[in-house]
Amino acid sequence: MHTQADRPAVTVVGLGSMGSALAGALLDRGYPTTVWNRSPGRAEALAARGARVAGSVAEAVAASPLTLVCVLDYPAVHAVLDPVAGKLAGKQLVNFTSGAPEQAHETAAWAAGHGIGYLDGAIMTTPPGVGSPEMMFLYSGERAVFDAHRAALEALGDPLHLGADPGLASLYDAALLGLMWSTLTGWLHGTALVGAGRTTAADGAAPTAATAFTPVAARWLTAVTGFMNTYAPQVDAGRYPGDDATVDVQIAAVGHLLHAAAARGVDTALPELLKGLMERTAAAGHGSDSYASVIEVLRSPAA
Amino acid sequence: MHTQADRPAVTVVGLGSMGSALAGALLDRGYPTTVWNRSPGRAEALAARGARVAGSVAEAVAASPLTLVCVLDYPAVHAVLDPVAGKLAGKQLVNFTSGAPEQAHETAAWAAGHGIGYLDGAIMTTPPGVGSPEMMFLYSGERAVFDAHRAALEALGDPLHLGADPGLASLYDAALLGLMWSTLTGWLHGTALVGAGRTTAADGAAPTAATAFTPVAARWLTAVTGFMNTYAPQVDAGRYPGDDATVDVQIAAVGHLLHAAAARGVDTALPELLKGLMERTAAAGHGSDSYASVIEVLRSPAA
Repeated sequence: MHTQADRPAVTVVGLGSMGSALAGALLDRGYPTTVWNRSPGRAEALAARGARVAGSVAEAVAASPLTLVCVLDYPAVHAVLDPVAGKLAGKQLVNFTSGAPEQAHETAAWAAGHGIGYLDGAIMTTPPGVGSPEMMFLYSGERAVFDAHRAALEALGDPLHLGADPGLASLYDAALLGLMWSTLTGWLHGTALVGAGRTTAADGAAPTAATAFTPVAARWLTAVTGFMNTYAPQVDAGRYPGDDATVDVQIAAVGHLLHAAAARGVDTALPELLKGLMERTAAAGHGSDSYASVIEVLRSPAA
Repeated sequence: MHTQADRPAVTVVGLGSMGSALAGALLDRGYPTTVWNRSPGRAEALAARGARVAGSVAEAVAASPLTLVCVLDYPAVHAVLDPVAGKLAGKQLVNFTSGAPEQAHETAAWAAGHGIGYLDGAIMTTPPGVGSPEMMFLYSGERAVFDAHRAALEALGDPLHLGADPGLASLYDAALLGLMWSTLTGWLHGTALVGAGRTTAADGAAPTAATAFTPVAARWLTAVTGFMNTYAPQVDAGRYPGDDATVDVQIAAVGHLLHAAAARGVDTALPELLKGLMERTAAAGHGSDSYASVIEVLRSPAA
């Protein structure tokens, strides 16, 4: 695709599968795109799609007002960009490298010290999802940088600015990945449970395929999302009215899950952990409160 | 509301908050509804809405071709219904009492022995959700009973028949509750993480309210549901192509979550469990596979 005259140039540093997807999405939207990777060879496919391949990182960052960096980790960010910090002065940098909030803060301070506008970013999709307007891209740091390059960022996905604190994107990333792993593990555990009849059938239950269970699980997750929306104001208020779904009621129900898992030879570590959290929550005086009160014990880890 | 002549009579045995909600939904749709509860006094509000209050459980089950029972547990089902099994002969029974699949099987056999048509049911909502066509009601057991009373069951929610095995509703119930607790706990953990700045701010991150984080988490769950739909056929095939989101990549990422939780004084038991599962999955040879391969270790518990 030809680049379009009204699009500002963008540079992408780091051409792993995610960096390549970022550059590809920019090319698809007509942005003049310069790419660079530490080890050569990764740029060929992008060059065939119209990317300009820089001969050095200095040449790469000089080519555009905005540079996106997506490398292995923060030490790699510094290894690549420290030598060209002077060339980035007065320009903007968006760092999609995964790391901790502290690393985002440190890199924001480094950027400020060199007169570089800085945003930290977190990409909430896999490389094939880059370019889809449904996928969330989280940003934190200087709002002015976000606003100045919003159109280019929209070429990558749906951009959300979380706040001026540059650590927020990393922190949300960790929190959302934790939610993803928890949900996927709960789904896989349920899938193992309903599918266990295939190998063991102590109670004669017929096995269910994952593709049969999953539409029901997916629909149930929309109800669970409703519970989250109900519980979020409870968390902010620090009051958790239990109504008909109290922690005590759920402690009784988790016993059925533990029993069913054990009877089918399915791992019980996850339901045991959930039961333990619920029991600690009840012991802390929240037995008649809603499940949202579990946050009280998550904030006060067991010794 | 007046009952309607074209609606068959329904009896509800057990008037806790859920049983009362079931009877209320039937009355709302014009079903002639007879109610009974072991301890009196629970029926008054329903009587004011048009319910007929039976003087005995025998009178209750004799009043309708279909009886719904919703009591504390399966021993309570037998304590209430064993003495009137003869009166239920030739009629149909739907049992919404929570229990294990084995208990559903045993009760189905008891019903068959007395010539009673039997469905086991699981209600995937709280009492205030009963009557909403969006809420899932899961049924397993005799398809003919389901088909015969489908209209009455639709007064309660959206009825899904899972299969002839009467244990399926209980098994799905356990599996779906496990998914709910896993998801809610992952969400609360993430909420604690992004909100922890309120009490500790080792890295200076600004605290985020639960009501600010939750819309992002809810939107992310729709992406996670997409991953489930992608992974379900992998589980059925027993092959888990990892593409760009391998178990090894996620083991690296879960380290950021553990670090962020520890730095903020948030409980690390959940991310530790997730990391341990991922490491066991990688050790079993699935490091380059997708997260769906975690089901392999869930099916083969650690000694």
